[in-house]
Amino acid sequence: MLTELGVIRVISSADQESTDIHGLLIEAAYPGVRTTSICLPDQPDGVHNEATERAAAAKMPAAARQLAARGVDGIIVSCCSDPGVGEARDAVNVPLVGAGEAAALVSLVHRRPVGVLGLSGDAPSPMRRILGGMLVASAVPEGVSTTLDLHKPGARDACERAARQLVKQGAGVICLACTGTATVGLPGYLAERLDVPVVDPVMAAGGLALTLVAQLKARSHCQATRLERA
Amino acid sequence: MLTELGVIRVISSADQESTDIHGLLIEAAYPGVRTTSICLPDQPDGVHNEATERAAAAKMPAAARQLAARGVDGIIVSCCSDPGVGEARDAVNVPLVGAGEAAALVSLVHRRPVGVLGLSGDAPSPMRRILGGMLVASAVPEGVSTTLDLHKPGARDACERAARQLVKQGAGVICLACTGTATVGLPGYLAERLDVPVVDPVMAAGGLALTLVAQLKARSHCQATRLERA
Repeated sequence: MLTELGVIRVISSADQESTDIHGLLIEAAYPGVRTTSICLPDQPDGVHNEATERAAAAKMPAAARQLAARGVDGIIVSCCSDPGVGEARDAVNVPLVGAGEAAALVSLVHRRPVGVLGLSGDAPSPMRRILGGMLVASAVPEGVSTTLDLHKPGARDACERAARQLVKQGAGVICLACTGTATVGLPGYLAERLDVPVVDPVMAAGGLALTLVAQLKARSHCQATRLERA
Repeated sequence: MLTELGVIRVISSADQESTDIHGLLIEAAYPGVRTTSICLPDQPDGVHNEATERAAAAKMPAAARQLAARGVDGIIVSCCSDPGVGEARDAVNVPLVGAGEAAALVSLVHRRPVGVLGLSGDAPSPMRRILGGMLVASAVPEGVSTTLDLHKPGARDACERAARQLVKQGAGVICLACTGTATVGLPGYLAERLDVPVVDPVMAAGGLALTLVAQLKARSHCQATRLERA
């Protein structure tokens, strides 16, 4: 009775091990979950501006259909800009969640002003939409403009400095706005060093996808029970 | 590697089987989860107005501490008014989630105006806080003023009529604002009959609690990895 989640990575890689990383993090943290990961073609440095976001959005419905055809119970778009999430959701008949909307929603549970740490000065639009007035500030770590930059020496320190700046600006929770932060273990790194909760967008997307799948399972269970009684 | 969730019911019962129902629904829908349920004392008809909400809130920190002492990984308050959730959260060192905030957050993922179906004309305050302008209308099923009324003949039909009214008022998703609706299988019942998603507050609380637990697990995993490398 495993739950199977499909993961769409927005950074292209010929290396399946690298593509699988977010799925493996989800499997490690959520019992009973198995993941299948694919990546979008021709996005060598992921999604980090309008052009790369538009390109990713256009490829998303096909990627979602590919995973749905493999029989997954739910799908995660592992990118905080949620490129093409609305269209991809309409393209498949299983729940589909963007990491951006998921991280924003999970941030709200802490009931504190949210600071968004990501790849651009403005928080991604799904986060702005959901956080509304709870969004207190957003920041970009120095020297980080694509997800690949997170792997450079000094990037962790730059992220920590930016996060501390957000706390100074009133953030009571840090919402990470790039799923590449999970690849490099940044959520745990920051959470150890700061006094505020740090929201990992990959974990948030995994949890929200599981929640939507569970709503459907509960429904099927109810139908089965009614059939037994009939 | 099970995840253990504690469930606090706000309707008193001497019958452990009855107290366990929401936990069992969560176990059925989320693989790898085990639940332990307790109920608050002296709340014979649950939480359905200010007085019963205040009474439940006062008892919540002690109930949370009782579950934390049993070693659970996270705790759910299975009531959509989230009575005492803030105080109970501060009283324990594991994640704690109220069903009201959880259901509202999950409703937002659908990106549609939300109709709240519950026990009082106003949506519970945690839902109003989170839904903001996305809350389009709220309704009470005819003849239903406590969670116990949901078990009466005709209650399902009354709920369906109220839900359809919410859809007419512009709701694109129905957020159930009483966890007793899960006890009687209402989420599945309505989802089969309506063309809009129906959010089950018990499933939402389970999923959000799992998400917060997963964030901590991912952090521990990161720490362990760093220790290995040291």
